[in-house]
Amino acid sequence: MSTIRFLEPHAGVLAKREQIVSGLARLVPDDCLVTEERELVPFETDAFTAYRRVPLAVVLPETTEQVSAVMKYCSEQGVPVVPRGAGTSLAGGAIPQEDAVVIGISKMSCILDVDFANRTARVQAGVTNLRISDEVSADGFFYAPDPSSQLACTIAGNIGMNSGGAHCLKYGVTTNNLLGVKMVLQDGTIIELGGKHLDSGGYDLLGLICGSEGQFGIITEATVRLLAKPEGARPVLFGFDSSEVAGACVADIIAEGIIPVAIEFMDKEAIDICEAFAHAGYPMDVEALLIVEVEGSDDEMDAMLRKIIAIAKTHNVKRVKESQSAMEAAAIWKGRKSAFGATGRVADYICMDGTVPLGQLSHVLSETSKIIDRFGLRVANVFHAGDGNMHPLILYDVNDPVEAEKAEAAGMEILKLCVDAGGCLTGEHGVGIEKRDLMLHQFTETDLNQQMRVRAAFDPAWLMNPSKVFPLEMKMREAV
Amino acid sequence: MSTIRFLEPHAGVLAKREQIVSGLARLVPDDCLVTEERELVPFETDAFTAYRRVPLAVVLPETTEQVSAVMKYCSEQGVPVVPRGAGTSLAGGAIPQEDAVVIGISKMSCILDVDFANRTARVQAGVTNLRISDEVSADGFFYAPDPSSQLACTIAGNIGMNSGGAHCLKYGVTTNNLLGVKMVLQDGTIIELGGKHLDSGGYDLLGLICGSEGQFGIITEATVRLLAKPEGARPVLFGFDSSEVAGACVADIIAEGIIPVAIEFMDKEAIDICEAFAHAGYPMDVEALLIVEVEGSDDEMDAMLRKIIAIAKTHNVKRVKESQSAMEAAAIWKGRKSAFGATGRVADYICMDGTVPLGQLSHVLSETSKIIDRFGLRVANVFHAGDGNMHPLILYDVNDPVEAEKAEAAGMEILKLCVDAGGCLTGEHGVGIEKRDLMLHQFTETDLNQQMRVRAAFDPAWLMNPSKVFPLEMKMREAV
Repeated sequence: MSTIRFLEPHAGVLAKREQIVSGLARLVPDDCLVTEERELVPFETDAFTAYRRVPLAVVLPETTEQVSAVMKYCSEQGVPVVPRGAGTSLAGGAIPQEDAVVIGISKMSCILDVDFANRTARVQAGVTNLRISDEVSADGFFYAPDPSSQLACTIAGNIGMNSGGAHCLKYGVTTNNLLGVKMVLQDGTIIELGGKHLDSGGYDLLGLICGSEGQFGIITEATVRLLAKPEGARPVLFGFDSSEVAGACVADIIAEGIIPVAIEFMDKEAIDICEAFAHAGYPMDVEALLIVEVEGSDDEMDAMLRKIIAIAKTHNVKRVKESQSAMEAAAIWKGRKSAFGATGRVADYICMDGTVPLGQLSHVLSETSKIIDRFGLRVANVFHAGDGNMHPLILYDVNDPVEAEKAEAAGMEILKLCVDAGGCLTGEHGVGIEKRDLMLHQFTETDLNQQMRVRAAFDPAWLMNPSKVFPLEMKMREAV
Repeated sequence: MSTIRFLEPHAGVLAKREQIVSGLARLVPDDCLVTEERELVPFETDAFTAYRRVPLAVVLPETTEQVSAVMKYCSEQGVPVVPRGAGTSLAGGAIPQEDAVVIGISKMSCILDVDFANRTARVQAGVTNLRISDEVSADGFFYAPDPSSQLACTIAGNIGMNSGGAHCLKYGVTTNNLLGVKMVLQDGTIIELGGKHLDSGGYDLLGLICGSEGQFGIITEATVRLLAKPEGARPVLFGFDSSEVAGACVADIIAEGIIPVAIEFMDKEAIDICEAFAHAGYPMDVEALLIVEVEGSDDEMDAMLRKIIAIAKTHNVKRVKESQSAMEAAAIWKGRKSAFGATGRVADYICMDGTVPLGQLSHVLSETSKIIDRFGLRVANVFHAGDGNMHPLILYDVNDPVEAEKAEAAGMEILKLCVDAGGCLTGEHGVGIEKRDLMLHQFTETDLNQQMRVRAAFDPAWLMNPSKVFPLEMKMREAV
């Protein structure tokens, strides 16, 4: 991998490290402050593990007031701040830099209030995604966004990256399921946005916060929407002779106006890897697989499936297999949701996250495989096809620097391909460090300058998660 | 009504009126510029007709480039700009001021591209809301947000106010159905946000634009989501003995996790007025009416209705009446959608737009009627109950200044009541002029200062729709 670059560290901050650590120690209890080198190491990277830097210190506050005190102090001292949820970012969103204080919200993990009448839950922002659904499941409800990392990732991180998941085709991503937040601004001010209602007058700052990658403040509480669980749900497998045909079938299903809960795609490489891991009963004699999940009453599911099968037949579908039991359904999803982990067992990989208009799925799949061939690499495609959110996993050997560089170059070409096809750089993983240089492929300088002006309205001194999202050159040029 | 107040007009702008008009004349064709006093009068107000001011000039451009040229010129000359769609704002969002140039997008009303494969339509921003559904209806699609003014209101206005409508309970409001915009910034820069995809990396400026009440730029094109029409739809009437009981029934339906397409509420006053106008077959022997619309296959609708009727019975529902034909269904909706117009035939009124958490519906309805009684006025309640978006129409005589002032004071009390119940000032009409002074009841000064900083990132000179949304005092204090 090419060497990681950050904005130049603040020399003044590095010079007064001891003083800053003492200052922080006055603001939070002892067990909320990490300053020993060996204890800082776990915070040096996130799930984008190719890059790492040890931060100046880590604070793990227990209350919003503590977050506020720490932010105010860092603001006064000119210390950069890197917010951290569970550290599951695939784009390097939580990777620190050596002059930064990491503020992690993992200790703030209580469910504060569940209100079934209004179908909302208020939670501390360090609660894990799956915990919310677990809490309300017995009463027949769930929280919809379901990233594959949902067992570990926090709501704060979900909000920072506007996370999606397999079932977001029907239910929308985080921004569609978030009603309010309590957050701490860079100067320590505590603000509340939204609430239990849908729209609060004034600008939609809540929507702006969602997906702002930790650059507008630290979220400490969130109010989210709960949905009623469907009467039933049934995943069905459709096997095809080629990826392009499977892609065309997805486009036709959506064009017909049918919205299943999920349409997930796997190519041959992904099927092999996931089946070996999860024994999900995936058909092995096909080149591409769609997992289509329908839900509702039995009648509804039957009606929707009839339409989908009719469309699949026009694409010469080779295998159609309905899950016959709850256990079979669980295995099908286990295979899909563990795709990244299962891939990690057979090879190192980087995961791209481009999106494309559905009409372009076939074209982009076939061009992707040409790019991969040209670099002499392997790819496993496993992604949210229904909303055009591709996840090519580019396989390589992390100990072979030449191959690593090829993988990175191929990934960048694939993301440019997505943008050129009318899509965009990231569906749900965020820009982080990984894609910041490609932002100029997606946006004009004019667009990015406007985004930077909005950022400055929250963080004029550019101290929040400073080396992320924007091309470093643009920021450095401005600083001159 | 109390006298309208605006930010102090720019004396320099008023002094060089002739020069500004000549400058504008060089930028657009003759028939795109309105400068004669008598031709300016139609632009002096919008649907919030109590207040009016004649603007300096009106420009009705035909292209994005013309909008850009006019904006650049106004920016250079320091001239305030007031964007205008169809002028249907109920909150005074399009009311001009005497030193402002109104830029109306009514001439830009073409549908540019319909893409069924990706279920999107790209339109010029002056197209009317209903036009889009009309265009795609034969192919089985529709555009979901449906404000009562949908025959007249433009997509640009819908985006500015983040408009909703009766069917938004299921389908979401404008922000949930908007994929991209082309817009012109205050300095004339043309930017594009979003596209055919869902999330583009970087901050969610598209979401921020939606509901920004014309203060961030002028929208000239929009890409919106198309949805497949349901197999069938059936409105059903439920009559109750009191408003409070009907409100409690709504809360129970939603708490059960059932999401019909629409749950509309009418009290006795509204029923009488609407039935006299539309002959919709509303029951006349009840105190409150719910219009609940379900959709899907016949089986689905039957199943959902069974559940809803069971809940209604626990609230001693007095009448249940299913529409028996498409004509009957149309009449039911005609009655509801013409509620404002029908009310206008019997009295002058102002329409409030507060929202409340559903669990508070009964409480707020009963407190509302106490407030109205205290002022010796009459009220007709007709609103989107399913998403807690109340529309009390306060009836009064516009020629009686004492009564007019009472109506305004009662309205303000009702909005404060909504906020205090955990709701907010506006569900879909926007803040505009009407509610700007109440913003300090909903938000803290800290919150509003942050919103003003974000605004300044788009319009540092405060020239876009300048007297709206924020309490005038906050802006004036800052200017000192």
